[in-house]
Amino acid sequence: MNRAQLQKLYPQVRSFTEALCEPLAIEDYVVQSMPDASPVKWHLAHTSWFFETFVLKPAVPSYRPFDERYAYLFNSYYYGAGERHPQPQRGLLSRPTVAQVLDYRRHVDGAMRRFLEDAPERALSERSFVIEVGLNHEEQHQELILTDFKHVLAQNPLAPAYRPAPEPAAGARVPLEWLAYAGGLVALGHQGPGFAFDNERPRHHVFLAPFALASRPVTCAEYEAFLADGGYQRPDVWLSDGWNVRERAGLSAPLYWQHDGTRWLEKTLGGLRPVDPRAPVCHVSYYEADAYARWAGARLPLEGEWELVASSAPVRGNFAEAGLFQPAPTEPGRGPLQLFGDVWEWTASPYLPYPGYEPFPDALGEYNGKFMSGRMVLRGGSCATPTRHIRASYRNFFPLDARWQFSGIRLARAAD
Amino acid sequence: MNRAQLQKLYPQVRSFTEALCEPLAIEDYVVQSMPDASPVKWHLAHTSWFFETFVLKPAVPSYRPFDERYAYLFNSYYYGAGERHPQPQRGLLSRPTVAQVLDYRRHVDGAMRRFLEDAPERALSERSFVIEVGLNHEEQHQELILTDFKHVLAQNPLAPAYRPAPEPAAGARVPLEWLAYAGGLVALGHQGPGFAFDNERPRHHVFLAPFALASRPVTCAEYEAFLADGGYQRPDVWLSDGWNVRERAGLSAPLYWQHDGTRWLEKTLGGLRPVDPRAPVCHVSYYEADAYARWAGARLPLEGEWELVASSAPVRGNFAEAGLFQPAPTEPGRGPLQLFGDVWEWTASPYLPYPGYEPFPDALGEYNGKFMSGRMVLRGGSCATPTRHIRASYRNFFPLDARWQFSGIRLARAAD
Amino acid sequence: MNRAQLQKLYPQVRSFTEALCEPLAIEDYVVQSMPDASPVKWHLAHTSWFFETFVLKPAVPSYRPFDERYAYLFNSYYYGAGERHPQPQRGLLSRPTVAQVLDYRRHVDGAMRRFLEDAPERALSERSFVIEVGLNHEEQHQELILTDFKHVLAQNPLAPAYRPAPEPAAGARVPLEWLAYAGGLVALGHQGPGFAFDNERPRHHVFLAPFALASRPVTCAEYEAFLADGGYQRPDVWLSDGWNVRERAGLSAPLYWQHDGTRWLEKTLGGLRPVDPRAPVCHVSYYEADAYARWAGARLPLEGEWELVASSAPVRGNFAEAGLFQPAPTEPGRGPLQLFGDVWEWTASPYLPYPGYEPFPDALGEYNGKFMSGRMVLRGGSCATPTRHIRASYRNFFPLDARWQFSGIRLARAAD
Amino acid sequence: MNRAQLQKLYPQVRSFTEALCEPLAIEDYVVQSMPDASPVKWHLAHTSWFFETFVLKPAVPSYRPFDERYAYLFNSYYYGAGERHPQPQRGLLSRPTVAQVLDYRRHVDGAMRRFLEDAPERALSERSFVIEVGLNHEEQHQELILTDFKHVLAQNPLAPAYRPAPEPAAGARVPLEWLAYAGGLVALGHQGPGFAFDNERPRHHVFLAPFALASRPVTCAEYEAFLADGGYQRPDVWLSDGWNVRERAGLSAPLYWQHDGTRWLEKTLGGLRPVDPRAPVCHVSYYEADAYARWAGARLPLEGEWELVASSAPVRGNFAEAGLFQPAPTEPGRGPLQLFGDVWEWTASPYLPYPGYEPFPDALGEYNGKFMSGRMVLRGGSCATPTRHIRASYRNFFPLDARWQFSGIRLARAAD
Repeated sequence: MNRAQLQKLYPQVRSFTEALCEPLAIEDYVVQSMPDASPVKWHLAHTSWFFETFVLKPAVPSYRPFDERYAYLFNSYYYGAGERHPQPQRGLLSRPTVAQVLDYRRHVDGAMRRFLEDAPERALSERSFVIEVGLNHEEQHQELILTDFKHVLAQNPLAPAYRPAPEPAAGARVPLEWLAYAGGLVALGHQGPGFAFDNERPRHHVFLAPFALASRPVTCAEYEAFLADGGYQRPDVWLSDGWNVRERAGLSAPLYWQHDGTRWLEKTLGGLRPVDPRAPVCHVSYYEADAYARWAGARLPLEGEWELVASSAPVRGNFAEAGLFQPAPTEPGRGPLQLFGDVWEWTASPYLPYPGYEPFPDALGEYNGKFMSGRMVLRGGSCATPTRHIRASYRNFFPLDARWQFSGIRLARAAD
Repeated sequence: MNRAQLQKLYPQVRSFTEALCEPLAIEDYVVQSMPDASPVKWHLAHTSWFFETFVLKPAVPSYRPFDERYAYLFNSYYYGAGERHPQPQRGLLSRPTVAQVLDYRRHVDGAMRRFLEDAPERALSERSFVIEVGLNHEEQHQELILTDFKHVLAQNPLAPAYRPAPEPAAGARVPLEWLAYAGGLVALGHQGPGFAFDNERPRHHVFLAPFALASRPVTCAEYEAFLADGGYQRPDVWLSDGWNVRERAGLSAPLYWQHDGTRWLEKTLGGLRPVDPRAPVCHVSYYEADAYARWAGARLPLEGEWELVASSAPVRGNFAEAGLFQPAPTEPGRGPLQLFGDVWEWTASPYLPYPGYEPFPDALGEYNGKFMSGRMVLRGGSCATPTRHIRASYRNFFPLDARWQFSGIRLARAAD
Repeated sequence: MNRAQLQKLYPQVRSFTEALCEPLAIEDYVVQSMPDASPVKWHLAHTSWFFETFVLKPAVPSYRPFDERYAYLFNSYYYGAGERHPQPQRGLLSRPTVAQVLDYRRHVDGAMRRFLEDAPERALSERSFVIEVGLNHEEQHQELILTDFKHVLAQNPLAPAYRPAPEPAAGARVPLEWLAYAGGLVALGHQGPGFAFDNERPRHHVFLAPFALASRPVTCAEYEAFLADGGYQRPDVWLSDGWNVRERAGLSAPLYWQHDGTRWLEKTLGGLRPVDPRAPVCHVSYYEADAYARWAGARLPLEGEWELVASSAPVRGNFAEAGLFQPAPTEPGRGPLQLFGDVWEWTASPYLPYPGYEPFPDALGEYNGKFMSGRMVLRGGSCATPTRHIRASYRNFFPLDARWQFSGIRLARAAD
Repeated sequence: MNRAQLQKLYPQVRSFTEALCEPLAIEDYVVQSMPDASPVKWHLAHTSWFFETFVLKPAVPSYRPFDERYAYLFNSYYYGAGERHPQPQRGLLSRPTVAQVLDYRRHVDGAMRRFLEDAPERALSERSFVIEVGLNHEEQHQELILTDFKHVLAQNPLAPAYRPAPEPAAGARVPLEWLAYAGGLVALGHQGPGFAFDNERPRHHVFLAPFALASRPVTCAEYEAFLADGGYQRPDVWLSDGWNVRERAGLSAPLYWQHDGTRWLEKTLGGLRPVDPRAPVCHVSYYEADAYARWAGARLPLEGEWELVASSAPVRGNFAEAGLFQPAPTEPGRGPLQLFGDVWEWTASPYLPYPGYEPFPDALGEYNGKFMSGRMVLRGGSCATPTRHIRASYRNFFPLDARWQFSGIRLARAAD
């Protein structure tokens, strides 16, 4: 990215983060509802720490940190960047206050603005890539602000909403179709000049057997049929680890679902609402997605299968900018439908390095590579992902029992 | 208490609670730093819930609760008052906001003021006792606000202070003397017309062997000598359970103490400060107090011994109203010194019912009696206790490993 | 004890331990079913270690240990005697084998026999007391062999028996009567020349209010009425800690009880049998005993009350030598009945040092004193206690949630 | 397999299991040292349960189970075969005794012998495959008997040996060479008539980039260099999950290694011995293998790479029949060396279904498929694997933190 592009994008991305926080009360910024989630306040600070640590401190000799101690408080997991405050204790910090964190943002933003304006071309081009990583990083935290805060609200018996949501429009159910693909030796992974994370590279070949992909994600109505068929009481359709998780955690439905005696309700960022039978089911773990697929006589797609199909589809969908923050019912059309947006789609592929994988250089080498075990790949982005952030080669990854992301299911199977 | 007394005391006590919160930022009200402690916000609401539940709802037919759902959120442990939100999850609630909780207080205070003004004499006298309990209850939570918030601040690497504290005045160390008492058959427990909790009654007899009581609490200097003598590495002076706690929790000094390589520092509500060698040691568990006493060739006093001595001493000392919120160095004088205020003094007496104990009637029966196992009695109040709250017969009680209260040590031994 | 007495008693006590093991298969000696219990093999070795460590090593210069490494393996909790194998890992040791442990016993017994024969009078008298402690210690482990192995068998779905038990004789229920006592200033604790543990001393005075004691222990029929009245669903009769234990552990009846749809059955050392309504209930925790007492409108006795009554009763009852290993139905007679034997009786008294308590000297100082927190006193012995072992002043002690001992309930109340 | 083959193989396999137990004392059969491991007694019974449950009960109408309750006790994880005793509690069972379990084996063996002799051809052929699975299953448990019992012995401070081992012969170190392979589109998975597990099928194609494979496993000397270079203190070479495991479990060397101040020693089935620098390192987790590989500038092989190379190598090596039960030093020769036997080799491939995977039919469908998450593939067998059991397509699988198998490391890297 050149100077002009960065000067345009930086304030856009940064201000969208703050815009997402507008509906929050001060108290909302503080709570950490589980070790894997972080307080909103922390996200605001950590994304600023990123620019301070990887751009301003190394590239701007005159830069004075807002508070030296923030290096410790807001480092997430970069051993190369020094000691850090333990992740499960982020919710124990009432200070710095929200106002102080916002001051910290302004301090960093001011220095970044000056750097983007004043830096000699060579200094800028040396840091251009890291800044672009930082903006993509901030976009990831925009999504986490929404999903982590949704989790906070869900712990509250008062059932507060992030902000009111419109009633979903009426409409018919869209039947599931199977789209057949020949597979064969295909090239996957990012190519071309645009930004991509290291984990999307290098482009490489895989061999795919012929397969079919569902034309749309699994809907809540379909998932209710799974529930009604005793899906959570049938070990034969579950992975062994999944069944153990189910028993230990007492799972009986997707996260945020509750039954009122008559029907299923769902906690959403717009408050407690009836489950929409036409919308993609979400907040299911890999184990649930896999069990559903087996119950349905299908399987989850390989990430290669998904990417092969997606690479010829436009990147359009229900993303964060729509402000819906909830998967929308499928609309009729030629499939594949809703590949992008709405829900992240669990794949059957563990998150692994591509052949010849090279991590980002220096401290950013910890960004992705060290998480390449114990996680599955999800594809396509969700209703909480910023539009700009996603592409066909994008690989998200979460542990197999994670449910607090907008994670859903698309089925695949061998071609007939 | 009659109408005039209640009308005077109620606003006094309630406003002192809020005055204690003045130095807090909004964020400070939200955090719960451990299951045994509660967010300040919760204390503000729970103490209001108490009046709402035990006075307004039963006695004022026209009373409309501020929010029906608060009955669930702010019930602490009263099974008789219905279901309740789990204590360890109090810090997961960002809502109600602090402003809403303060509105709740005003709502309750308004209704209470009207009740105290307008209630017919008989209705008032029927509730007078419960209101008095409620005010004493509020005073207990004033102390907890200070100790719980101290614990919150102590988790924070930024080492924030509740509010600045004055430098302690210079002064000499006061030597420890042994005061001898004959013991014998003595009457203990509350008597007379003033308020007392059910656990201070009935007055009854115990037989005490002759004993001697230390003229003042154990000081930090004395406790440092224990540390220097390897007190935390010598199982022979520890109770078995205490030694296990010490190992499991990695204890090596009182809570809030840290060594900077040169000297001991202490986190106080006024920030991180050097340990004052002349001040009573505090934030020690029963196990530590007991180990110290054994190391010193002494023992902890029985609660009967303590009360016998205290019952002829004036209730004066370093209490919450002094605003020091930290134990003060002993000042020279005729002992016993500092029996009241500064630090709660662990006794060697388990918290048990006195012979013939009768719990408060109805739901308040859960106030004290059900905690009469697994806890030891502490006596005398601390620098965080409101003055009005304490008396010679007052029994505080905490588990043997609790350290976050201002709990200290006074030695006793058999008379020569 | 003099030489002749020790020469007679030592082999008696030691051989009774081994006699208790006769019904066991080799496999039975190995299992540790919970951290608080030990494998039978360990008990056999540890009791030998006691004589080796506290008698033979210090008093017999020519003594050669059977295996130097046993000092580590079979030290229970004596810090003064060196490092020790962690208690929860005793069941991980398949070696030494049972045969080796029995060889160890013979090795120690041979050396002890020679010492008792050959030791000069002065050397013998210096060690006479420790040997007597060792024999009393062995008796305690005889009881633990039975209770720990009962716990092992109870984990086994095959429901094996230790050995067959006779059918209980028919007989009528014996009604409960209240026996009144005046109390006052009474002297308690061991006196006289016989053996007593340090925790039974010194004799001292306590003041007791007038009280009444139940003529017999609470029976299974009475406890079933508590169950039928929802005793395990009523927090109002439980201590707070007890209720939490009940919820966490899912308690719904005494340990070893199970309902077959029609009636209560009980795992006994003689196998699974119907609960005998006339027999004392046992395997209840302090929390259950206390809850039962509150439900019954009574309380548990103070240990002083119990001892006052027991000190004028003969030490007779259903002890281990009877070979029943199960509480027997009360037989009619003048009360108090079954004070000794059948079931240990929980008292309302925490296990604390008597005023002026002095631990045994040297390493034996760890025998009792360091456990004087977090435990309640039980009195009277059980059907698994050797007869010789018990007396009116004897104080047993266990944590409040312990249930695997033969622990039962005797009620008390204030005198009318 | 036909009748004659089964009649020959069945007693061979079954008796080898018992031969492995010959060095054991009765006590050795009972202990369970961790939830993932089982008592030897359990292995002996479970392998018999397999034939009883999947052959005798369904195929022999006249068969009478040895004890109906064993169906519950010795079912491992087959939901389709009914309820089962919890795995972590297998070590709590002293009964059935070893003698009873051996009787159970004889009972099953007698019935199987009669079935193999007398069954009509059709009945036999219907069960022939299940019997073959049962024999392969028994071979897996032969290895587990060795690894689980090694873990039991390792808990014992007495450091007992399973049986004495010979001194390793002297010899030089064999240098590591890199063997280059072209990769491309290759066919993997079992083909042909011999036995294979469902997880080795179907044969399918994968595309492999050119790669190089190390000529031999990583040796202890090489791993010591990793230790000496601070390998366990460098988060940069570890996966994030692995680093967390390392911290939580306090790992500092392979399982069973200990340092005596001078050199590394290793607990082996032959007792405590100096680490042999020329032998393959073993008892490392996937995380350790992966960290070592990154530190060494290499990576672990994909299972496809491994299988491609192994499919043209003879299945020879240091297997269980050799009786060494410990990896042997590499002997000079043309590589690849030690692909089979000595140590299982961790691959970089998660244990996943091959495209088109079909589980075994009926209850045996639970054998493999449900474990296809959270585990990595290991290849090649170990010094504890029976020779007959292994082949190039064989896929073993364990969680990423498992260390108690004979699991080692072979390096791979991209071709130059």
